[in-house]
Amino acid sequence: MQIIDGKKVAAEIKAEIALEVDCIKSSGGKIPHLAAILVGHDPPSETYVAGKVRACEEIGFKSTLVRFDNDISEETLINAVHNLNKDADIDGFIVQLPLPGHISEQNVIESIDPAKDVDGFHPVNIGRMVLGMPSFISATPAGIIELIRRYEIPTAGKACLVIGRSNIVGRPLSNLLSLKGYPGNATVTLAHSKTSNIPELALKSDIIIAALGSPGFITGEMVKEGAVIIDVGITRVKSDLTRSGYKLTGDVKFDEVAPKCSYITPVPGGVGPMTIVSLLRNTLLASKQRISG
Amino acid sequence: MQIIDGKKVAAEIKAEIALEVDCIKSSGGKIPHLAAILVGHDPPSETYVAGKVRACEEIGFKSTLVRFDNDISEETLINAVHNLNKDADIDGFIVQLPLPGHISEQNVIESIDPAKDVDGFHPVNIGRMVLGMPSFISATPAGIIELIRRYEIPTAGKACLVIGRSNIVGRPLSNLLSLKGYPGNATVTLAHSKTSNIPELALKSDIIIAALGSPGFITGEMVKEGAVIIDVGITRVKSDLTRSGYKLTGDVKFDEVAPKCSYITPVPGGVGPMTIVSLLRNTLLASKQRISG
Repeated sequence: MQIIDGKKVAAEIKAEIALEVDCIKSSGGKIPHLAAILVGHDPPSETYVAGKVRACEEIGFKSTLVRFDNDISEETLINAVHNLNKDADIDGFIVQLPLPGHISEQNVIESIDPAKDVDGFHPVNIGRMVLGMPSFISATPAGIIELIRRYEIPTAGKACLVIGRSNIVGRPLSNLLSLKGYPGNATVTLAHSKTSNIPELALKSDIIIAALGSPGFITGEMVKEGAVIIDVGITRVKSDLTRSGYKLTGDVKFDEVAPKCSYITPVPGGVGPMTIVSLLRNTLLASKQRISG
Repeated sequence: MQIIDGKKVAAEIKAEIALEVDCIKSSGGKIPHLAAILVGHDPPSETYVAGKVRACEEIGFKSTLVRFDNDISEETLINAVHNLNKDADIDGFIVQLPLPGHISEQNVIESIDPAKDVDGFHPVNIGRMVLGMPSFISATPAGIIELIRRYEIPTAGKACLVIGRSNIVGRPLSNLLSLKGYPGNATVTLAHSKTSNIPELALKSDIIIAALGSPGFITGEMVKEGAVIIDVGITRVKSDLTRSGYKLTGDVKFDEVAPKCSYITPVPGGVGPMTIVSLLRNTLLASKQRISG
């Protein structure tokens, strides 16, 4: 059994990007520049955006944070998006979700120039991804695909069960893993809340990607010998064992499942650390070429 | 066992659209107008486009056929697309595929205004479909979804096997049938050329959609009692029994499979007749509102 060390891989990728940024700087090229729009003061959003800005600084990107109060109108926010679309120095940008209830997230997402949509949420990028064309792939699926690639985990012809059909994790992964090429060519089943026989499906699967947000859902009995387990769950569960009073818990009962696996991602330290580096990779890509739009 | 009569449903839908066009005309509204671009003289393409034009006339739409010789440049063709994008009288249009080898089909498709893309091939429409948003859905998947709806075939929680991952049939269907809502909420497995155990998967499936283009691939032994079978295959197979010397053959051994099914589409007369009416429905939709873009 091998633990997929997302923390280590994420650090490697950051170092690779930092090296590339050094090369760009020393050759006088344009330094990649990521902008983020943050509306309001939602504490988790503050934390996420701060993490993204810090990661940019660490690897030598420029970063810009554009802040608005919670009462911003949709029109003003979309105007801010248009300004970033037009700003030649900004290679890519994100609008941190969630947005206040009076603003349509979809309208805002669709106002982003797809060539700068480094979160990969614009329908053009999703459509291009589904068609197997170059596109910005959103952070979590891109991170998982990269872990599979770096650990050289075989996927062709494998029975792959993706549990959870969210638009930002399960559904894109189900499409990516069934595309031609590597990592891909898997026979993917997409399970969700209406699927009644998940344990039976899981037991027949070579690769299980658990992205349902239900702590400890996948038990040892549901996993066959040699399976590959990717745990996307990160639920805050109360705990007496930590100073903060809670701990991040995955969708997989790690202690039961790990001994049966060929590969498994821990929580924390598996998929999580890959998400920010996926965003950085997309920004580097955006700075090199317009891949869609 | 009930045969899904695509010919009958297609005729019903045509009558419904014709009635709606009558209402539009009598209230002085704008008559829906479909245009088609045809490059060269490929005989099947001539047949398909002629069928689409004829269907428009039957139900009272306006239609325009724009023809070019095979040696048209990509630039000139894309200019023609831009002209149709700008033409306020044209509600929707298609560019008949395939195009000559010197033209990038993807560049041409992406030059179509998504709001007029009634073939549903533009990445924006594919992305919106995958996200469960209003979109133009391409003809074959839309026709199959409509057959399922009209025959009120249950899909929620059903094990659905889609065989074939093409961008115009299998992949969109795998996404549509796993979306929330009806027809949807199925547990979909997308099988393809790298899947080694299709017979085993088929035998466990409540719904099988065969779209691999391999005549008679699905045999009686591969189907469980009560399954729903949608046969998308239409391969021309030599035959001594027809005047033309060939017959259209599906992916399913109908005689073996039909007795075990709850529902089955025949070939011909199942999915085939639904494709043109899907295009007409999209054109009507386009004439009523801009649903994307």
